[in-house]
Amino acid sequence: MDLGQRSETVRRANLSAIVRTLHEEGPQSRSDLVTRTGLTRSAIRVLVGELKAAGLATEDRAVRHGRPGRPSPEVSLVAGAAVAVAFSIGVDTLAAAVVGMGGTLLGLSRTDRPRGHKVASAVVDDLVSLLDHLPSGRPEPETVVAVGVAVAGLVRSRDGLVENAPNLGWTSVPLGALLAARLGWSIPVVVRNESDLGVLAEHRRGAAVGIDDVLYVHGEVGVGGGVLVDGRPMAGAAGYAGEIGHVPVDANGLLCRCGAIGCWETQIGAGAILARAGLPRDAGPEALDDVFAAAEAGDVVAQAAIETTGRTLGSGLGGLVNTFNPRMVVLGGIFGRLHPHAQQAIWEELERHTLPAPRAMVRVVPAKLGVDAPLLGAAEVALESVLADPATRFGHRARVAQLASA
Amino acid sequence: MDLGQRSETVRRANLSAIVRTLHEEGPQSRSDLVTRTGLTRSAIRVLVGELKAAGLATEDRAVRHGRPGRPSPEVSLVAGAAVAVAFSIGVDTLAAAVVGMGGTLLGLSRTDRPRGHKVASAVVDDLVSLLDHLPSGRPEPETVVAVGVAVAGLVRSRDGLVENAPNLGWTSVPLGALLAARLGWSIPVVVRNESDLGVLAEHRRGAAVGIDDVLYVHGEVGVGGGVLVDGRPMAGAAGYAGEIGHVPVDANGLLCRCGAIGCWETQIGAGAILARAGLPRDAGPEALDDVFAAAEAGDVVAQAAIETTGRTLGSGLGGLVNTFNPRMVVLGGIFGRLHPHAQQAIWEELERHTLPAPRAMVRVVPAKLGVDAPLLGAAEVALESVLADPATRFGHRARVAQLASA
Repeated sequence: MDLGQRSETVRRANLSAIVRTLHEEGPQSRSDLVTRTGLTRSAIRVLVGELKAAGLATEDRAVRHGRPGRPSPEVSLVAGAAVAVAFSIGVDTLAAAVVGMGGTLLGLSRTDRPRGHKVASAVVDDLVSLLDHLPSGRPEPETVVAVGVAVAGLVRSRDGLVENAPNLGWTSVPLGALLAARLGWSIPVVVRNESDLGVLAEHRRGAAVGIDDVLYVHGEVGVGGGVLVDGRPMAGAAGYAGEIGHVPVDANGLLCRCGAIGCWETQIGAGAILARAGLPRDAGPEALDDVFAAAEAGDVVAQAAIETTGRTLGSGLGGLVNTFNPRMVVLGGIFGRLHPHAQQAIWEELERHTLPAPRAMVRVVPAKLGVDAPLLGAAEVALESVLADPATRFGHRARVAQLASA
Repeated sequence: MDLGQRSETVRRANLSAIVRTLHEEGPQSRSDLVTRTGLTRSAIRVLVGELKAAGLATEDRAVRHGRPGRPSPEVSLVAGAAVAVAFSIGVDTLAAAVVGMGGTLLGLSRTDRPRGHKVASAVVDDLVSLLDHLPSGRPEPETVVAVGVAVAGLVRSRDGLVENAPNLGWTSVPLGALLAARLGWSIPVVVRNESDLGVLAEHRRGAAVGIDDVLYVHGEVGVGGGVLVDGRPMAGAAGYAGEIGHVPVDANGLLCRCGAIGCWETQIGAGAILARAGLPRDAGPEALDDVFAAAEAGDVVAQAAIETTGRTLGSGLGGLVNTFNPRMVVLGGIFGRLHPHAQQAIWEELERHTLPAPRAMVRVVPAKLGVDAPLLGAAEVALESVLADPATRFGHRARVAQLASA
């Protein structure tokens, strides 16, 4: 490796450090960037200059509230300079979003997904047509760096094959390939399990910012988990880890859609709340809204359905706290909605089933990003290639601008 | 950093790469070391020379069976040049071992631990007196680099405080500090949970060599787990992760020693096997030996006790396979003894409670290191400081030797 190559490698790594810091932590002054990246003031000046010349960053004398004196200029990323298209496939809803650098949500559209097991290609059509309903309009293809997809099922991380999604009725669906073909853009399509993406989004922009050991538990019709171990997402050997909805909790329990008896999911998923409220297990999302509304209006049956579900959620969480020793449990999907109604019931049962040491250091909180956590996590993984090497995308324009100004 | 400092840093890192390779993979030729470390032939020559001069390595023209031609000389570590003292504290036994570089077991002694809750300082005395019963005799203090301790309880990794060991009757015992004071050696004492050490030992020297996603499940009176995620031990926020014995599996179950109802441990620990065989739950390790012997002799009650326990083990393992997506489940302690008798029962229930994708890629095997896995894992963590920086320990002697030969 000659000196020229080495210096180019270093330059790319340093650009990445700056862009990642701005993406994850938001706009900041050059001095803050010096502190956060460990680069020298002069390196920051040169590299921020390159990012500005490439149209990826701007620098403004922003008004900082509550700070005396003349404000320093702040460097920010230009959200629209590089964007991700994110999709999510839940049992009851489909969603699409365009998310720019810095995690800026530029547009979102959502539609109900009719029950019944629709073939994957029809779902792909539905997803892509959502792009036409974005308030911001269809994104310019040349600004899109990658596509991220959150799906309620087991995904092989290597190639985006959905191995098994019992609640969608899918087995061995090459979702990544189908979507890439349908979009016709020559950019990566990254497919992941929704809960694995949920924990990433909550860690980066939600309830678990700055916390490295996190258990995210997502409930809808099905129940899944995303785990952050020492700041890293736990994928397992092939990307299937986190299927905590399918932990057996009752040898004499109900038959789960996965084919096993007594999975935790049968006791805490949307169907279990509906059944406890006296409704059919498959009554659907509007019926669930009605149960929550009735509970808020004082209906004792609805309240009891929610509280009992909270207890069953809490005891299972107890076992998971013993297993993972997380600092935070984040409740996503319907569990985030359940939390304000059943906070005490959840904690009492968790307390009953945890060892004192891990119990003393854990907090249980609702997801801050609500039901959108998986969708926003899909955008984060799609933007990863720009964070890892901004120079690849912008190197050419930056180099041209540099030469012009020399 | 001037060039001299940088080159010293690089030298230390390269020495570490060589020593770690020899420690983990055994003796090999210089050519193999070139391949494994990526260092040049001349760097290997110089650094192996330093290790030899420091007395840490030797080089011999070993006979390689089954390879044609003249054998190349092989570089090996000198086991006794740096050793770890390892202790293990189980509910029924105490053990001590001296383990040298390369994982060579230089001596081991074991004693029964009388039931009843002995205070920690008395247990520490018992452990230290085991050193006098080593077949190799007490190790020379100047060769001991660190002490590793495996304990059947929750350990705060930061300082070796045993927060809680329900089956030993301990709460908040500063075991690391007690043992350091009693030994009077000014070297680190590293205390860890026995299952976290078991998975490390099986990964490095046992059933899971070369496998990066591993779930180790250890059974004695209590049940614990050690998990390897992508090659790294999962510790949790404070080192308490892996308490899978305390996952609730039966809301109407037995009271566990931890104070909760229906923990998995109450259904699969040694007490559960004894109870199913018609014996008191606390009948002890000899009674358990009798149950295994009776099963081997064809006793149907004993066989049924083992098989039923295997089924309950299998269904819980199913939930853990869904949770972790491991490539291998290693059964340690009594579960390793149970495996040959109940292999089919374990697998049938695991099959019933796993999703197809993670099930298709997992194997369940008995621990290769048997009941000693935690003890050997304790030695591995104690030797870590030498692996990370052999130059600190041997730099001085190596430098002197180098100067003498220059």
